Amino acid sequence: MSAEEPFELLATCGQARAGVLRTSHGVIETPVFMPVGTRATVRGLLPEQLEDAGAQVLLANAYHLFLRPGDELIRDLGGLHGFTTWDKPWLTDSGGYQVFSLDHLVKVTDDGVRFRSPIDGIYHFLKPEDSIRIQQNLGADIVMAFDQCVRLPSMPEQVSAAVDRTIAWARRSRDAHARPGPHDHDPLLFGIGQGGTDLAERERCLRPLLELDFSGYAIGGLSVGEDRDRMLRTLEHSTAMLPTDKPRYFMGLGKPQDLLDAIARGVDMFDCVIATRNGRNATLFSSQGTMHLRNRQYLRDEGPVDPACDCPCCTRYSRAYLRHLYKSDEMLGAILGSLHNTWFLLRLVRRAREQILAGTFDPNV
Amino acid sequence: MSAEEPFELLATCGQARAGVLRTSHGVIETPVFMPVGTRATVRGLLPEQLEDAGAQVLLANAYHLFLRPGDELIRDLGGLHGFTTWDKPWLTDSGGYQVFSLDHLVKVTDDGVRFRSPIDGIYHFLKPEDSIRIQQNLGADIVMAFDQCVRLPSMPEQVSAAVDRTIAWARRSRDAHARPGPHDHDPLLFGIGQGGTDLAERERCLRPLLELDFSGYAIGGLSVGEDRDRMLRTLEHSTAMLPTDKPRYFMGLGKPQDLLDAIARGVDMFDCVIATRNGRNATLFSSQGTMHLRNRQYLRDEGPVDPACDCPCCTRYSRAYLRHLYKSDEMLGAILGSLHNTWFLLRLVRRAREQILAGTFDPNV
Repeated sequence: MSAEEPFELLATCGQARAGVLRTSHGVIETPVFMPVGTRATVRGLLPEQLEDAGAQVLLANAYHLFLRPGDELIRDLGGLHGFTTWDKPWLTDSGGYQVFSLDHLVKVTDDGVRFRSPIDGIYHFLKPEDSIRIQQNLGADIVMAFDQCVRLPSMPEQVSAAVDRTIAWARRSRDAHARPGPHDHDPLLFGIGQGGTDLAERERCLRPLLELDFSGYAIGGLSVGEDRDRMLRTLEHSTAMLPTDKPRYFMGLGKPQDLLDAIARGVDMFDCVIATRNGRNATLFSSQGTMHLRNRQYLRDEGPVDPACDCPCCTRYSRAYLRHLYKSDEMLGAILGSLHNTWFLLRLVRRAREQILAGTFDPNV
Repeated sequence: MSAEEPFELLATCGQARAGVLRTSHGVIETPVFMPVGTRATVRGLLPEQLEDAGAQVLLANAYHLFLRPGDELIRDLGGLHGFTTWDKPWLTDSGGYQVFSLDHLVKVTDDGVRFRSPIDGIYHFLKPEDSIRIQQNLGADIVMAFDQCVRLPSMPEQVSAAVDRTIAWARRSRDAHARPGPHDHDPLLFGIGQGGTDLAERERCLRPLLELDFSGYAIGGLSVGEDRDRMLRTLEHSTAMLPTDKPRYFMGLGKPQDLLDAIARGVDMFDCVIATRNGRNATLFSSQGTMHLRNRQYLRDEGPVDPACDCPCCTRYSRAYLRHLYKSDEMLGAILGSLHNTWFLLRLVRRAREQILAGTFDPNV
């Protein structure tokens, strides 16, 4: 590993890894959980609250920001860093997942995707080259290749066709990424492996991606409804193929035990909307398991959501007050719940890192 | 004025007054703007953010909290101070205004009001004695008498009947207030004058209230749709009748110029949902007038909402980012807008106080 490599592996503990990923807006200590700010805002949380929570990098979405307010606007206003004031690293998703998970999709060709904006009904055609240019305009520190994601279960032919396109689009993404962007920093480009839970397809997808020598590799299209054993088996198969000197990113994983199990299998990076979505829905993580704060059992409960938590919610507010806020549909419930869940996942992964460095990491403790 | 009096007048500037109001949870410097936390939360804002904004006292509502989560629950959990962690003063509205402004009202008798809960459809009967007991359970530092408010315009007979009830209910409120509550502090009780914009009715209402010797007097049922000149004339008529050694509270007033004009006419206390409601609706106060942040003119505007503002929104975020948040219906827009508007009104009234103390207050500057 040369001094030029952005990723440095510091320690391993079994398959689990602790490292650092150097980006143009700062160093990311891995393993890392990345809060999701799809529309250039982590729902309900101020950037200063995310800083206090120990967030190192946020995720935004090329698809959503292309549609509104437009990537060129954000480019002109200093990229995501200037626009949002979050001046630590940003990772942008390529939009592949969003385009395929929305019903406004009209047509996929080998060249790209035709879809209709849910905002104004206008038709757009998005190619890998467009996705990379959008992400460059956004000023991402980590850019994701444009991929085709399939829902699971899918027919084998669909999985195979998506792998074909993902390979071709990865190459085109890399070529587009080689062209300089509008901002004065050099983003990293990550490739995304697809293939559903078919190990042969996963391998067929990853091999050519490895030749393209991306700065990191994402495992895409997993944890999208398949059973947990299959998910873990597919994950293990992928990480075994991936080089040790590049970061591995499991897209969309966020349940606490899933994070620990994936870390134990050598994953370095995670993102998930679950922290804020659950926070809005009164579903809160705790060291004693998941709690549903609307439940009547918390009506008079003066204790904190999680006695083991040092977040601004748990150090000040009671379960009874949270329950009242949720039952009354008051914004403060969603805010405090999102804050707590985000702190919880950030701390969980940070502790896993400390334990890996200390050689004591165990996903089942 | 004896040392026992909770209110102390420190200075006047024309009719404008600066004073202090001593309550069981701290001293309130007047004139004061009180952010509204109807359901025991100022919508979208953390108590710590309100502290940073310089809020001295919050308002909550007996009607809403009686229905959910119940005043007895809040009583058992330490009153509003313990329940919400806001340990500075609370003022509670008696519920009179809410009962009459809702469509679930079933029947008014001289004894009280029968209405139907919008939450579960259950019928309730609320008497002045109930309202005071609810407010005592909530642990309010300032309790409001139960009154009957009429919409404007109303028929003279309706205004007159509401004044009759308001007088009778003020007496019953005072008697109920004389009974000790469940918390170990003594709240202040304020009377509320009604009478619409009919000066004779206003006078007929206030006279007997003055004999009841409340700790403060509210001007109720004004700024509810009548024209501005009539509102100011009615206000002047009321303040001229009120004793100088008691605080005067104009209920529900919140537009910046209205606050200054009311301060110039001798009002000491204000509350209004406008700060947070407008904040949610992208309507923001500024030293240059009211701004509608969804407007296209702010699309690329990198300046702060108000260059003269030192709030957490204006010191960090651009109009362009705020516009994007509002257009995307992102919670952070509502949060930042509510924060800014609340800071704006608190600072406006705080500055008026400083100017009154310095003898330089002018409502038109």
